[in-house]
Amino acid sequence: MKPIDALRTLLGTDAVLDSAADLAPYLTDWRGRYTGSALAVALPRSTAEVALTLRWCAQHAVPVVAQGGNTGLVGGATPDTSGRALVLSTRRMRRIRSVDTANDTITAEAGCPLQEVQQAALAQERLFPLSLASQGSCTIGGNLATNAGGTQVLRYGNARELTLGMEVVLADGTVWNGLRGLRKDNTGYDLKQLFIGSEGTLGIITAATLKLFALPRARVVCLVACPDLAAAIALLHRARAAAGPALTAFEVISDDCWQLVRTQRAGAGAAGRALFAQPHPWLALLEWSEPEDAAHAQDQCERLCAASMAAGIAHDAILSRSLDDARSLWSLRESIPEAQARAGGNVKHDISLPLGSMAAFVAETGAALQALDTDLRPMVFGHLGDGNLHYNVGTQVGVPAAAAFSREAQINDIVYAAVARHGGSISAEHGLGQLRRELAQRTKSAEEMAMMRAIKQALDPDGRMNPGKLI
Amino acid sequence: MKPIDALRTLLGTDAVLDSAADLAPYLTDWRGRYTGSALAVALPRSTAEVALTLRWCAQHAVPVVAQGGNTGLVGGATPDTSGRALVLSTRRMRRIRSVDTANDTITAEAGCPLQEVQQAALAQERLFPLSLASQGSCTIGGNLATNAGGTQVLRYGNARELTLGMEVVLADGTVWNGLRGLRKDNTGYDLKQLFIGSEGTLGIITAATLKLFALPRARVVCLVACPDLAAAIALLHRARAAAGPALTAFEVISDDCWQLVRTQRAGAGAAGRALFAQPHPWLALLEWSEPEDAAHAQDQCERLCAASMAAGIAHDAILSRSLDDARSLWSLRESIPEAQARAGGNVKHDISLPLGSMAAFVAETGAALQALDTDLRPMVFGHLGDGNLHYNVGTQVGVPAAAAFSREAQINDIVYAAVARHGGSISAEHGLGQLRRELAQRTKSAEEMAMMRAIKQALDPDGRMNPGKLI
Repeated sequence: MKPIDALRTLLGTDAVLDSAADLAPYLTDWRGRYTGSALAVALPRSTAEVALTLRWCAQHAVPVVAQGGNTGLVGGATPDTSGRALVLSTRRMRRIRSVDTANDTITAEAGCPLQEVQQAALAQERLFPLSLASQGSCTIGGNLATNAGGTQVLRYGNARELTLGMEVVLADGTVWNGLRGLRKDNTGYDLKQLFIGSEGTLGIITAATLKLFALPRARVVCLVACPDLAAAIALLHRARAAAGPALTAFEVISDDCWQLVRTQRAGAGAAGRALFAQPHPWLALLEWSEPEDAAHAQDQCERLCAASMAAGIAHDAILSRSLDDARSLWSLRESIPEAQARAGGNVKHDISLPLGSMAAFVAETGAALQALDTDLRPMVFGHLGDGNLHYNVGTQVGVPAAAAFSREAQINDIVYAAVARHGGSISAEHGLGQLRRELAQRTKSAEEMAMMRAIKQALDPDGRMNPGKLI
Repeated sequence: MKPIDALRTLLGTDAVLDSAADLAPYLTDWRGRYTGSALAVALPRSTAEVALTLRWCAQHAVPVVAQGGNTGLVGGATPDTSGRALVLSTRRMRRIRSVDTANDTITAEAGCPLQEVQQAALAQERLFPLSLASQGSCTIGGNLATNAGGTQVLRYGNARELTLGMEVVLADGTVWNGLRGLRKDNTGYDLKQLFIGSEGTLGIITAATLKLFALPRARVVCLVACPDLAAAIALLHRARAAAGPALTAFEVISDDCWQLVRTQRAGAGAAGRALFAQPHPWLALLEWSEPEDAAHAQDQCERLCAASMAAGIAHDAILSRSLDDARSLWSLRESIPEAQARAGGNVKHDISLPLGSMAAFVAETGAALQALDTDLRPMVFGHLGDGNLHYNVGTQVGVPAAAAFSREAQINDIVYAAVARHGGSISAEHGLGQLRRELAQRTKSAEEMAMMRAIKQALDPDGRMNPGKLI
């Protein structure tokens, strides 16, 4: 019997795909940047079937690439071109195993789409706060394997901070059931932390127990026009002091980036209205969420905006007056990536910095890019509250995006040199995958790389878990 | 030259202690439960000197026990009785390296007492929220090595959640500088997570970069009398919904425990007053902290208490009217361990449970202990908001504490069997050390122990880092 037929016997005929047509959707990443090939795709239905699959892989020395919603931005879930690997898709493992309202926890299988976890929480009047553009299709397993960030990190943390327990299948098929729902447990090494952010290179996450929160009773969104980035940072400090943890998001959008969205949306109803009479160099989008009531939240936001305008760090402000308003302001922010794609794309970076270096980074990098080519335009937006910018470099209006792509290597050199100079990170929330693996190896210390290799060796001695990614 | 003289040459004569008198304070744990012996005590002044020390240990095959403030409760920082180990005390490494108010981070050396970190933050109008009974003498290095909890976990998390970056010296003397001050950094395995809670068994933490927060402007403490534990849990849910993250602490105290404090404090001023006219089965202590103002916080707490009394889950409530009041209520809670020690001590447990199992656990365990010996009395208090109880078993008034100690093994069997039955943890915030190492090995799965051993082997192949602790 051929090895692949043995796998079919273990999982059932329909759970192993190997025709070219069936394989295709699993072999190219979401952005269409990477295409690999694979021996087959396995679609296990349960943790036990994942264990059978990994034991089969061990027996036949087959590398394995875990794939959730295939929405990653760095090619982490796309196999290499050798055709030797098995893609293990978690899409059939999408059960919510339990919602525990007494303990405020939810246990979901790896293939469960993020949005279904949010909805299961909402059905019990709880909040699962992880929130991403791709939430309709990305999966909890992928969110944890990449330590996903998103728009609510400022208050609730990354995927890591939301995880209490985890079930993992290791390279040899061993199942580790670490599905604890405890806020405190100091009984040895916190092993789940290793798998969070490991991008499938240490084992395959099959389920997780996650934190739920009380639903906020009121939510107000403010769009604030700022004279410069330093003012937006001052506004962030002021908002933190005024709101404390009620400040659930603080995003920024540069004017170049904003005009792109506005132009594309012109005439598209409320969202397309010119929100401010004149352009402003930077916009900040704040979200205030609280358990009291809308009137209190409105009042607090108004005070914050008024004081910020009096202090000269804000020039104008728009507050949401309803949840619809709030959604509409958010949708403007969320339409940025699509607007950038429609404009022909740009050279993307997902960087983080200590907040005190942010304004200098943006000024220095902007100047260096102008010196390289006056047609280049940084189209910057991101999660300022987390020190995280999507520092994307495109071209000025009328110049084709290709002009930026042709200078990609030089642009990257400028951006990453500035990140290193200011003690930042080359990948804040997107991970390394294939795209940034080499870069990470060049920028991390030898000591750190050696420790990472020792951990990899300890848990995956044959190097079969997602080879060519992260490490 | 004798090996110890070589160490003296490296660190300086005054940095290596080996007389019996000099060694003594380092060889017994805070509770006086464990006494070991040691080759010597090293007192390095810098990370470079820690590296020299560990290289010397590697050369001479000397095991090493890291010690901070020596305030641990499980014997984790006390050497074994072989006399072969070097105790490495971090007490001379107590510098605050930097406070970055723009980034809201602080970088402190391992031997810096927790209270000095709190004060350095306060001097910049920031909050470092980690808060423990031993904060005057425990050190940041020890806090991180044990993933310390304390009274503010509900809002701010354990020591783990407060840590952004770390500097560690490995068993072979390699220095890893991972002192990043970033809220987001997805560039590989999050190695610092391994060292947090590893109790010195993987490497020695020499410094850390920690999160700071805006100072809350108002703080109100309520002491609420509840008819039973289920009512206290219902109050917790209600408080969470009403306060959201403004609920910074939620503690409970059983009446047996409360009467002990009250009796010992009778006549000791405000704190000794009979706060309630009659005894109540359980007391809850809530802390509400917020950025608005005291009047708003008072008003919100009064509403919460009134609604809870109307719902029958609270019988009475006392609110702090000033910061002095708040401190005085907290001091009652904080005097419990001392009051228990003065009453002759008890058999201690530091357990956590899913909140839905808490009331059943307390009822079942109390009944089983009564069946074992009617003189036994659980003296329970702890961090209910984190699902964490200090479930200490003493004796009823008039019966010597020895009656509990004589039954220690049976009491432990009853408590830990119930913890296992309800999916809890045998050590919520105190760690394993020597005291609970065997118990952890018996209660953890074979898969989990195997992974822990693989990690230990990867980072400390010769097993010289704090042998006999945790693993």
